[in-house]
Amino acid sequence: MQPDLLNQILVRFLKEEAGCFGFKKAVLGLSGGVDSAVSCALAAQAFGPENVLAVMMPYTTSHPDSLNHAHLCAEALGVRTKIVPIGDMVDGYANQEGLEDPTRRGNIMARARMVVLYDQSAAESGLVIGTSNKTEILLGYSTQFGDGASALNPLGDLYKHQVFQLARHLDLPTEIVDKAPSADLFEGQSDEADLGFTYAEADEALFRMIEERWSMEELLEHGFERAFIEKLQWRVTINHYKRLPPIIAKVTSRSFLTDFRYLRCRDH
Amino acid sequence: MQPDLLNQILVRFLKEEAGCFGFKKAVLGLSGGVDSAVSCALAAQAFGPENVLAVMMPYTTSHPDSLNHAHLCAEALGVRTKIVPIGDMVDGYANQEGLEDPTRRGNIMARARMVVLYDQSAAESGLVIGTSNKTEILLGYSTQFGDGASALNPLGDLYKHQVFQLARHLDLPTEIVDKAPSADLFEGQSDEADLGFTYAEADEALFRMIEERWSMEELLEHGFERAFIEKLQWRVTINHYKRLPPIIAKVTSRSFLTDFRYLRCRDH
Repeated sequence: MQPDLLNQILVRFLKEEAGCFGFKKAVLGLSGGVDSAVSCALAAQAFGPENVLAVMMPYTTSHPDSLNHAHLCAEALGVRTKIVPIGDMVDGYANQEGLEDPTRRGNIMARARMVVLYDQSAAESGLVIGTSNKTEILLGYSTQFGDGASALNPLGDLYKHQVFQLARHLDLPTEIVDKAPSADLFEGQSDEADLGFTYAEADEALFRMIEERWSMEELLEHGFERAFIEKLQWRVTINHYKRLPPIIAKVTSRSFLTDFRYLRCRDH
Repeated sequence: MQPDLLNQILVRFLKEEAGCFGFKKAVLGLSGGVDSAVSCALAAQAFGPENVLAVMMPYTTSHPDSLNHAHLCAEALGVRTKIVPIGDMVDGYANQEGLEDPTRRGNIMARARMVVLYDQSAAESGLVIGTSNKTEILLGYSTQFGDGASALNPLGDLYKHQVFQLARHLDLPTEIVDKAPSADLFEGQSDEADLGFTYAEADEALFRMIEERWSMEELLEHGFERAFIEKLQWRVTINHYKRLPPIIAKVTSRSFLTDFRYLRCRDH
């Protein structure tokens, strides 16, 4: 899709969906990475930069570049900023438990940031804007009720390479667009090292699998490795629960999500 | 529905849904209230009490009865327990922000408890079992990504009076069944004072509105006050977002929740 058209569609999405709930302001976590930079730029276009609060939430081990790049981005976009360090909150639990495991610590950080963002959104009367892209949602490379939590997500149906395209179209600082993607939950972390493959590899295969519904035979014929495709399929399936609300036992005639649907909008 | 049949259905739900993900253990927050007591009893039946970890998460202002009643319940059911105070975590953020607003503080507590439960579930390799009932989900009387977050929720389609029926059927301690429902997020809090009506009133009206689809005319004829019905309708509609995953802008051919559906189960 043309970046300019994509940009227009996503800005209209934010405006219309927020408007139908009666909201005119946005709150989001600005990490210094490309996803939140693009979300922030779209929110600034949709709501006006003065109505966007970009919250920076460093942990004690966060790389200083993360905060620096977040500031670069916020300055370029003219949005309001607030720094809320999450060290006391995270350590308040992690030290109590003597917690060392990096995955568990990373999930606690991601969820602590959700706590901050939702509280700031209450203070602002703004909606929390999501920053997860389709590649990471498909792969489950996110924390449920953490970075995966938001009211509106403009990026959730965009593959990672589309986020990069949009970032370039939006003229975001090159420091952000050119660096290696990292969740920065522990020192030296890189998304692609965590995943065991590159975003370019994942995006090409996922696009064929999901959007074009290629069979395993077609994928192998095209040159993909069977083990790689099986790994992706496994990740997509095993992480499906993260994309759904809690599963509720059905015992009445009208249950949530199945029989029971209300309009999301207040006045329409 | 007969409490015995309801009990059987809900236990089978927990067993089958957890089993299809390969899980044999459960983790839940035990507050000392009736909802989590019933969830805990169902989980103990489904997984065996030794495979259930009931986590008690007092805040500094929590009423001591809450913890006492949670212990009574855990002892009656024979489940394992763990106490994780959330004071350091909550104050780590709230003090930093100088936060006084009781609603915002309450939401932070509810979400901090989610952080603890999900971390404990990772340590246990257990699923987080939900404790929200249909009345509170309909009314939006819960915190999104807080007490509303779980993997499996056996109570989400049960009205509050059905939870009480089940609690009596399960022979849960009378201290828990007979006390006034309270989120215990601030001193002297009571659900019914917060809501401005009783659960008995809400349940009767909601049952007619939701399950039996009565029109406003029928509801008024039956003797309900118009203002009360409008208040319930408003709450049900305005809180619908809490029951849905984040709203994602659709820009590809297969988007989450609309075109894109995977089986939730791994091996079936």
